[in-house]
Formats: sequence, structure tokens, C-alpha cells
Amino acid sequence: MNAPAHIKQDSTTSAGATPAERLLVMASDDMAAVDALILERMDSPVGMIPNLAQHLVGAGGKRLRPLLTVATAQLCGYRGTSHHKLAAAVEFIHSATLLHDDVVDESELRRGQKPANLIWGNSASILVGDFLFARAFNLMVETGSMDALGILSNASSVIAEGEVQQLAALRDVNMTETAYMEVISAKTAALFAAASEVSPVIAGCADKERHALRDYGLKLGLAFQLVDDALDYGGFESALGKSIGDDFREGKMTLPVIRAVAAANASENTVEIDFWHRVIVDHKQTDVDFETAVSMLRKAGALDATMDMARKFSAEARDALSVFPKSQWRETLEDLADFVVDRIN
Amino acid sequence: MNAPAHIKQDSTTSAGATPAERLLVMASDDMAAVDALILERMDSPVGMIPNLAQHLVGAGGKRLRPLLTVATAQLCGYRGTSHHKLAAAVEFIHSATLLHDDVVDESELRRGQKPANLIWGNSASILVGDFLFARAFNLMVETGSMDALGILSNASSVIAEGEVQQLAALRDVNMTETAYMEVISAKTAALFAAASEVSPVIAGCADKERHALRDYGLKLGLAFQLVDDALDYGGFESALGKSIGDDFREGKMTLPVIRAVAAANASENTVEIDFWHRVIVDHKQTDVDFETAVSMLRKAGALDATMDMARKFSAEARDALSVFPKSQWRETLEDLADFVVDRIN
Repeated sequence: MNAPAHIKQDSTTSAGATPAERLLVMASDDMAAVDALILERMDSPVGMIPNLAQHLVGAGGKRLRPLLTVATAQLCGYRGTSHHKLAAAVEFIHSATLLHDDVVDESELRRGQKPANLIWGNSASILVGDFLFARAFNLMVETGSMDALGILSNASSVIAEGEVQQLAALRDVNMTETAYMEVISAKTAALFAAASEVSPVIAGCADKERHALRDYGLKLGLAFQLVDDALDYGGFESALGKSIGDDFREGKMTLPVIRAVAAANASENTVEIDFWHRVIVDHKQTDVDFETAVSMLRKAGALDATMDMARKFSAEARDALSVFPKSQWRETLEDLADFVVDRIN
Repeated sequence: MNAPAHIKQDSTTSAGATPAERLLVMASDDMAAVDALILERMDSPVGMIPNLAQHLVGAGGKRLRPLLTVATAQLCGYRGTSHHKLAAAVEFIHSATLLHDDVVDESELRRGQKPANLIWGNSASILVGDFLFARAFNLMVETGSMDALGILSNASSVIAEGEVQQLAALRDVNMTETAYMEVISAKTAALFAAASEVSPVIAGCADKERHALRDYGLKLGLAFQLVDDALDYGGFESALGKSIGDDFREGKMTLPVIRAVAAANASENTVEIDFWHRVIVDHKQTDVDFETAVSMLRKAGALDATMDMARKFSAEARDALSVFPKSQWRETLEDLADFVVDRIN
């Protein structure tokens, strides 16, 4: 048993644990193998690489995406070790985007600590991100699965496309809900979908299972991002491990703001319309503006609407699993869909 | 004939053209197909992506790396279209590193024009670089060659490793020649080597040819980078399409400086030792320092030594081709090895 101490501890109290924790316990051998692979493959004789990568990857994080890969592989009855390599590859792709996002977003907190670029500089974060991204492909090549490579390389270009679309829409107070859904489908849900779809592919499942798991991952990813965007206006920093109000400060349009702006426009509330224009388009913000924004979101019911939509996608994710016979893995993946939404509490 | 106008024009005067130009003429159908593929695959509904990519890729550049792939494929007698996809992938990997390098290096000139990050911002350059890198892998997957994917994904992580090693050695006046050779082998020669090695792989050549072409690309890449590093202290901006003195201003240690510092240390010339310490380590430079640096390099024979080493690698690149029977393609690739060094004149 190579499971880390915190996982072993959980296993004694799994009855009361969260679905993510129960899943971690069930997948503890797999995840220990994935963690070992991650540590091994982020190593390099160029010391700055493991130092910086360790800062991010070692800080933990939820490991939600690689967990999806190993859990869906188990659901598909996969017997082999390629799922460990693909799970590690998925985490590397995610880590690379986080390192680049920190530079792009100028974040001040990541996984409860200072982002790497504020310690090692932007250049190091860009280049180590590139390194991890390339290493992800090295791992995929080792599996010998061209289909898995196709799925993950396609997801990678879609992610970058979503990130650029989001960047282009920054401070655009007229961003539509359709454009927002395109952005989160691409920048977040595409990797959840790919992380879940590679498993039936390496397990040799039929198209029905493959489509079902792709759909599960996609909907789970959408729910996850919607909750994230709601939490940015209402969560607690300690629970999130990142700053709240980041999106607001960047002038990033997310569903809560899109809904609040729509409400202000519908009621022709010029005070609110002017407020959103000033803080988003002109990007002129004072210390009290975030609090004002939160109260406008609450008044417009925008946070509730965002959470409702997250719940809708979470339910659809759950439903997608119905093509699989009932099993402990299916049940835990179903619970995980609920958990992604309920973590707000 | 889809060859661009400037290539058709060359074909009428090919006798007096440079080896690179002759190679472009010989490979004009191939390169037209590669150019079409590049344009097609850098497209995206997210307008900022083709706009930014077009600025870099459309500015031309030497297309030396994709040219290597198509020319070596012809040398190997390859009959198919995968070499176009791999050549486009090689150019995308190169373009992605250029976009990221511009952010890292804070360059002011790239291919004779303003770098993309000074027009669209650092964030856009980072993310569009990621997009092109992912698209490179999409193209490779389409070829169905797992060996080619292995070669190019491995080269990609080596490139990133070399870039980080170079970053870590910035302003380190004691950087050794060994470390410098490691950096340029990784950041530059690895892609030249991979661009040449994928051809015998898809053509189904024996290991002997594969190793020979890998060696050819590697040595050509080393020669290319050594000349680049010499030109940064002695070339002409108009010919280079980039600023001269960039390496000096960044405090980047390249072979010319390593040799000049070694000469200053050997002769215990404290004025020169102090000079290099101030401009590199302390990174305090005045307007006249670059001129002073160039004269110290010339006095130490450092530029000649750098060019001599480039010529040595160029000759080794040429020799590596001897395993192939004589042909027009072999002859032009041999000439290209000379040209990479002679472009200083």
C-alpha cells in the first residue's frame, strides 16, 4: 500500500466522507501510482523545473481530473496500467494551463499559496508549463493509444481556444450567455470530457459507453465551472484555496455578472448599468465595489440562477452514467456529480 | 503549381540562388502544400488566434525546419502526404516557442517586425502559442505514426528543458561552455534533429538512415544557433530580421561572451573582468557598452572561435549524409549545411 497518509486516514472514516474522498479511497492504489508517475515525470536535471512543478503539483489540489480517468477506467473494467499514464498526462495538461493562467490572470493565490510566477517569475511559469505539456504527450505516446492521443490533443487545442476567447471577451460587458457557455465548455469542460472519454477507449468499450462517459465528463465540467464562477462571488478563500473576487477584479464576464447585467438592462436601472460599465468596461474599481457587485448579484438572483444551472448539468452528468450496469464505481461517480455542486455548502 | 510568386521567380535564376533558395525551388510543391496546411490549421472561429498567428507565421521566416522535413522525406524516397503534416507540425512547434520566447526575452523585433506580444499583449501570445502547440499534436495524430509522435513530443520537452536551463543561467557570468552546449542542443538543435528524423521513420528506412538524419539535423541545428549567437554581436538587423545586441541586453550567456570572459580571466584583465561582471551579473549597462563588448569579443577572437565551431558542426552535418547514395536531394542538403554557416557573409 503506497497510499499517502491522508488517504489512509480517510479510509477509516469513509462512511462520513465526501464522495470525492470516498472515490479517493476506492481509487487509492491507482492514485498512488498516478502520484508516483507525476513525481517521476516532472523531474529534470534542470532544477528549476522540479522545484516549480513541485510547488504547484505538490500543493495537492483536488486531483479531480486524473481521478476521473482512473475511476472511469475502473467503471469500464479496464485491466492494465495505461490509465495511470493517461491520468498523469491529464494532470500535466491541467497543471500547464494553471501555470499559464496565473501569468495571464495575474492571480495572487493558487491552491492556498502564492502562485509560481510570483516566486520564480512569469518566464519560468510559461516555460515549465510548456515542459509539463510536452511531458503529457510523452506519457500518452507510451500508452500506444492513438485514439487517446487524438482525444487529449484535440481537447488541448480546444482549451487554448477557450482561453483566448475568454481573453478577447475580457471587459466586454455585453458578452452573451452563449459565448460564456462556449468559453467554459472549451476552457474547462473539454478536459473533464477527455479525461473521462479516454478510459472506455483504452478499455475497448463500445461507442455507447464512450459517448456516455464523454457526456458525463462534459456535464461535470460545466457544473464544476459554474460553481467555481458562483463561488468567486460568494465562497470563502480558505475553502477555495484561491482568492475570491478575482474574476471581478479582472473584469472577467461570468454567468453571475451576465445575469446581473441583463437584469439591470431589463429594468433600465441606469445606476446599475453605469456601475457595471465602470467596473467592467472602464475597469475602474474602488474597494467597496466588490461588495456592491455581490449585493447586485444577489438582488438579481444571479448566484442562485448560476447554481441552478450547475445542478441541471450535474443531474445530466449523473443520467449519462445510466448506460452502465449498477456498480460501486458508477454509484461513486454519480455521487461525485452531486458533490461538485454541493461543495458550495 | 501553387508555389508562391517569390519562389517561382527564384526558379528562373536557380543557378545563382543560395542553397536554401534552390532547396525551396526543388521542394516548392511540397512547401506549397505545407503552407496551405499551416494556414488551414491555424484558423479558428476565435478571431484573435488567426490574426495573431498570421502576424507571425505569415511574416514568412525561413521555414527552415519544415523544409528539412520535406527535403529529408524526399531524400528517403517517401511517397505519401504525411511529411506535409509533420512539416506543418514542426513549424507550429517552432512558432509556439517563438511566441513564448518573445514574452520571456522581451524582444523588440521578430522577423523584421514588432513581436505579437507587443501588439496583442503577453497573455494572447502565451495562449495562442499553446493553441499552435496543441494543433501540432493534432496534425501528428492524423499521420498515425506513433514513432513520429514520440520523436516530436520528446523534442518538445527537451526544448522546454533547454529554455528553462537558459533562463536559470541568465546573468550567470560563470556559465560553462558545457552548459552552453547543453542549452543550444536542447533549445534549438533538438527540433532540427526531430524535423529530420521523422522522415526516415515515416518512409520506413533502416536505423542507419534514421540515425544519420537525426545526426544531420542535430549538427545543422548546433551550427545554426552558433551562427545566430555570433550574428547577435556582428550581424546586420536588416539581414537578420531581428535586433542585434538582444542577447547582450538580456545578459544572456552565449559562446562569444563565454570565450571573452575566459580570455579576460586567463589574462587576469581586471578591467574586462569587472566590465563583464557589471553588464552581465549586475545587469547595469550604458549605451556604449555593447560596442565595448563587441571590441572585447573581437580582441579575444571569440566571434571567430564561435564561427569555427559552427563550421565544424556544419562539416559533421554534411558528413552524416554520406550513408545516402548521391542524389540531387543529398547534394542540396549538403549545400544547406554550408549555407547555414555562410549566411554571415
